[in-house]
Amino acid sequence: MPLTPEQQAEISEQRAQSAPTRRVVAPGMEQHLYTAQPVLDHGFVRVIDYMGDDAAITQAARVSYGKGTKAVQNDEGLIRYLMRHWHSTPFEMCEIKLHVKLPVFVARQWIRHRTANVNEYSARYSILDREFYIPAEEHLAKQSVINNQGRGDTLVGEDAQRVLEMLKADSARAYDNYATMIDEGEDGNGIALARELARMNLPANIYTQWYWKVDLHNLFHFLRLRADSHAQYEIRVYAEEICRLVADWVPYAYKAFEDYRLGGAQLSQPAVEALRKMLKGEKVEAADVGMSAREWREFMDIVS
Amino acid sequence: MPLTPEQQAEISEQRAQSAPTRRVVAPGMEQHLYTAQPVLDHGFVRVIDYMGDDAAITQAARVSYGKGTKAVQNDEGLIRYLMRHWHSTPFEMCEIKLHVKLPVFVARQWIRHRTANVNEYSARYSILDREFYIPAEEHLAKQSVINNQGRGDTLVGEDAQRVLEMLKADSARAYDNYATMIDEGEDGNGIALARELARMNLPANIYTQWYWKVDLHNLFHFLRLRADSHAQYEIRVYAEEICRLVADWVPYAYKAFEDYRLGGAQLSQPAVEALRKMLKGEKVEAADVGMSAREWREFMDIVS
Amino acid sequence: MPLTPEQQAEISEQRAQSAPTRRVVAPGMEQHLYTAQPVLDHGFVRVIDYMGDDAAITQAARVSYGKGTKAVQNDEGLIRYLMRHWHSTPFEMCEIKLHVKLPVFVARQWIRHRTANVNEYSARYSILDREFYIPAEEHLAKQSVINNQGRGDTLVGEDAQRVLEMLKADSARAYDNYATMIDEGEDGNGIALARELARMNLPANIYTQWYWKVDLHNLFHFLRLRADSHAQYEIRVYAEEICRLVADWVPYAYKAFEDYRLGGAQLSQPAVEALRKMLKGEKVEAADVGMSAREWREFMDIVS
Amino acid sequence: MPLTPEQQAEISEQRAQSAPTRRVVAPGMEQHLYTAQPVLDHGFVRVIDYMGDDAAITQAARVSYGKGTKAVQNDEGLIRYLMRHWHSTPFEMCEIKLHVKLPVFVARQWIRHRTANVNEYSARYSILDREFYIPAEEHLAKQSVINNQGRGDTLVGEDAQRVLEMLKADSARAYDNYATMIDEGEDGNGIALARELARMNLPANIYTQWYWKVDLHNLFHFLRLRADSHAQYEIRVYAEEICRLVADWVPYAYKAFEDYRLGGAQLSQPAVEALRKMLKGEKVEAADVGMSAREWREFMDIVS
Repeated sequence: MPLTPEQQAEISEQRAQSAPTRRVVAPGMEQHLYTAQPVLDHGFVRVIDYMGDDAAITQAARVSYGKGTKAVQNDEGLIRYLMRHWHSTPFEMCEIKLHVKLPVFVARQWIRHRTANVNEYSARYSILDREFYIPAEEHLAKQSVINNQGRGDTLVGEDAQRVLEMLKADSARAYDNYATMIDEGEDGNGIALARELARMNLPANIYTQWYWKVDLHNLFHFLRLRADSHAQYEIRVYAEEICRLVADWVPYAYKAFEDYRLGGAQLSQPAVEALRKMLKGEKVEAADVGMSAREWREFMDIVS
Repeated sequence: MPLTPEQQAEISEQRAQSAPTRRVVAPGMEQHLYTAQPVLDHGFVRVIDYMGDDAAITQAARVSYGKGTKAVQNDEGLIRYLMRHWHSTPFEMCEIKLHVKLPVFVARQWIRHRTANVNEYSARYSILDREFYIPAEEHLAKQSVINNQGRGDTLVGEDAQRVLEMLKADSARAYDNYATMIDEGEDGNGIALARELARMNLPANIYTQWYWKVDLHNLFHFLRLRADSHAQYEIRVYAEEICRLVADWVPYAYKAFEDYRLGGAQLSQPAVEALRKMLKGEKVEAADVGMSAREWREFMDIVS
Repeated sequence: MPLTPEQQAEISEQRAQSAPTRRVVAPGMEQHLYTAQPVLDHGFVRVIDYMGDDAAITQAARVSYGKGTKAVQNDEGLIRYLMRHWHSTPFEMCEIKLHVKLPVFVARQWIRHRTANVNEYSARYSILDREFYIPAEEHLAKQSVINNQGRGDTLVGEDAQRVLEMLKADSARAYDNYATMIDEGEDGNGIALARELARMNLPANIYTQWYWKVDLHNLFHFLRLRADSHAQYEIRVYAEEICRLVADWVPYAYKAFEDYRLGGAQLSQPAVEALRKMLKGEKVEAADVGMSAREWREFMDIVS
Repeated sequence: MPLTPEQQAEISEQRAQSAPTRRVVAPGMEQHLYTAQPVLDHGFVRVIDYMGDDAAITQAARVSYGKGTKAVQNDEGLIRYLMRHWHSTPFEMCEIKLHVKLPVFVARQWIRHRTANVNEYSARYSILDREFYIPAEEHLAKQSVINNQGRGDTLVGEDAQRVLEMLKADSARAYDNYATMIDEGEDGNGIALARELARMNLPANIYTQWYWKVDLHNLFHFLRLRADSHAQYEIRVYAEEICRLVADWVPYAYKAFEDYRLGGAQLSQPAVEALRKMLKGEKVEAADVGMSAREWREFMDIVS
């Protein structure tokens, strides 16, 4: 785990605090507050704050004066209806704030999701820690030969060892030189290079951290893309950890998300057409509905 | 006040609820939760939820593990520094959710602020109440003769009466006809026009309501423009009410906002140049620094 | 058509202009530039400017140095792949700017799409024209009894006449009084009420106009929701008009949009499960896959 | 310059194309289209497309039917008025698309500006070139002792040499190992590590590239922060290059931006108060107006 005793003490102090509030409280989320859930070799995700719960979604959808809850059952039905019909604004009424520690190359993918608020640890101002992501051996894989941007077979034997050695050696050397460059020296005779310059020597597997705040609608969009099996493993594990937190926070909304987004499928107009014929017992081929070979293959993966 | 006994009961029930939370609690805001602050003749603003406090701003700016607070004094200094130097992301780490009741023509200005989440009462689905904004007599004013989009002298005597009569009569007739159009009739013999059509007969002073959620940075931007003396009175009173809530919620941030945004001034490069000369005792005119008459007049309003 | 001879002359002058450019030109869109396509009784849509074409989408996806076009066929295949797999950023590389004249109640729905740039005609500054949307008789319909926010049977006979008379009379009276309130009088003895106040008397079927600029990805999102059969007729006709323009502008992207968004279907995880069973010849009911009656009905609408 | 002959040929072909358009053409920008303006040692900025010109700003502000230009003088006055009074939407009506090549650590700062569209070269899919930013010796500087996130004195002599050697050696070794890891081998016996993994070995001074599209309002916001003297040199040179392009594209808007944003100053309420006293000849100190020592120092830098 990547926390120093001081950091652990600060987190424990936060967890120990408790105060009464008139706001909506989500018991499933309270239990996770501040706890650092480990991800990868040095990373974590921890919930710093949240706003709203399942009822807050329906309350906003109804623009109601009270809790917006007539019956629990109605709430779940309405949430599923909203999800099914792409109503986004009620889900935007819930908000979550996370503290995340993650490798820079993961951060670069993550930040592409623009509708969120971010404060990142500044390497212009502060010194980065000597912490690098080194993959577990079972996560080293060859370039896929069927998918141009994915992984294929797992690397074995000597090749895996060579990769790990290169990654470790280059990380260590890069950090040593970074430290040398910024060192002021005991007597002020160090190089003391500006931090904003020295950081350029550090590789993309170094860890950074940030506060990331996002509403539930945009979080679901992030999770749909990043908890997907085509997402890079190193960001997917963060998404999966967040999925677990969200499932405890807004269980109805998460279940609807799982059913309609994560686990569902998007069919094209020609695919729907093909499907209708197939259900009538007709024999259909790609050409009959104007689909390319690739489109047909992806369609077959869904229905069989 | 625009609330029915049922609505008031729902609000009271919400205010009565209290539960322990590990989250940051802002005592100044807790006291306002759910209370409907009256605005205009039938409108209100009420806080439904909030996230964060002053310390949450500095905590995010520092990407810290704990509360982010070393000393209270440091927090205020850092917040003022962030405001002065246009750092926006730490202020985005606080969030507020409001329930607002407001005339449609005010809602149309308000919604121009796009970086916020909105759920509005649906007039396709529901029936609007018979509530119209009728200005108090002292807020009726002539078109300004010096500012093309503002108000000049207050209307007096008969003119004011005529305006109020026209507004009241037209509102009443429009609503009567709206009611007639959507009426199903006791025996199903009413017109029962689709609500999405009937609503088009209603004037812009009818009240609507929405849930509006926004982060503190974007809220400050809204308040700077709408609490400004050039803003239309009918939206300014909402902004001023929100200013009071924010001052109790995040007092340091609000004070910095007041000093650097609401009360400050933006000077152009030529104005700074003129100022430096003036402070050296030189006599300066608009032409000396390439300013137009209008720019010079606005500059003089700032410095004298 | 809602244009004065002066406006028509200005538009004709714009259409007559032509200048060489090094930028990408989309011939299908050039023909539509500035032409006002009529919508509803007084509204229109006209293209003011555009950026990019089909090739610009693939050029950005490839971050290429040249036109990004190897073979036309490849471009279409890549565009369909991007659409199918929810890649949004390449579509954001095309942009369109429209001038739209539309009733206020339509504008209020439209503006809910926040990721766009808008400049609306200011009723604080200027005087609105006496132009109101009065539905054609065949578009008057009763409130739907199966869908809480839609239209059911068409209104017939006397009921339709009564609705049209109410709408016309109320519009006329509201505008007369608006005109009286803002009138300065020949001798300066008019009421001359501030325009920002007088406008509140005008109903939601009055026309407004704006410049609206949006990227292709967000435009597609708008069109998917607003060209949908569940959208209100009065906004759907604008969306359909824009669909025709887009089809001429970026034909490959539009076709992909039609196949994968407009005409396709989103299936939930339980629906996919049900489908697989059905294709194997098994008999399936809602309860077998945990779907509600409503979900099942919507599913049946898709596959049969 | 970082372009291969093939890339240069593609760019030249693009520049050679010309076609008539009915759209607004900005002659000052046409001359720059596609030309790669060199920045840093291997980077560049090149304009791929643009929408609008100065007149398009006023045309949108007026929601006009024609070109929106009565007299050129009026246009400039209106643009300056809009800039002075923080009207943002008319400036959003212009759009620019750039192709930028830049070091990863610069890209990481740049992407923090979220209201823009980005397509970045994918290191999951493609192989990065062996191009690293190595600072010119005169741009190597010590960490500032007065500003925690800036540069102080220039590095001299041996220290500079050591830094350059470390940067060069580490870049070269990291790339060699990257190449080894992804190499498939002539006989398929290479490691062929997945590219999405191998890239993590590359330091932050490697070059990446992207298509970046942004509206003029948000571009000005970017330029105000990044062309500022406190911005890191390596991003500032990109911002300055873009400033030159914008000055040729929309000369009135750029001049207004220069006068009111780049070159102007924001004064706090206490600073305005102090100023008024000073102009009356009174002696004022920080404490008199409640300013901290730091605030006073920044104020003095503005007015003297």
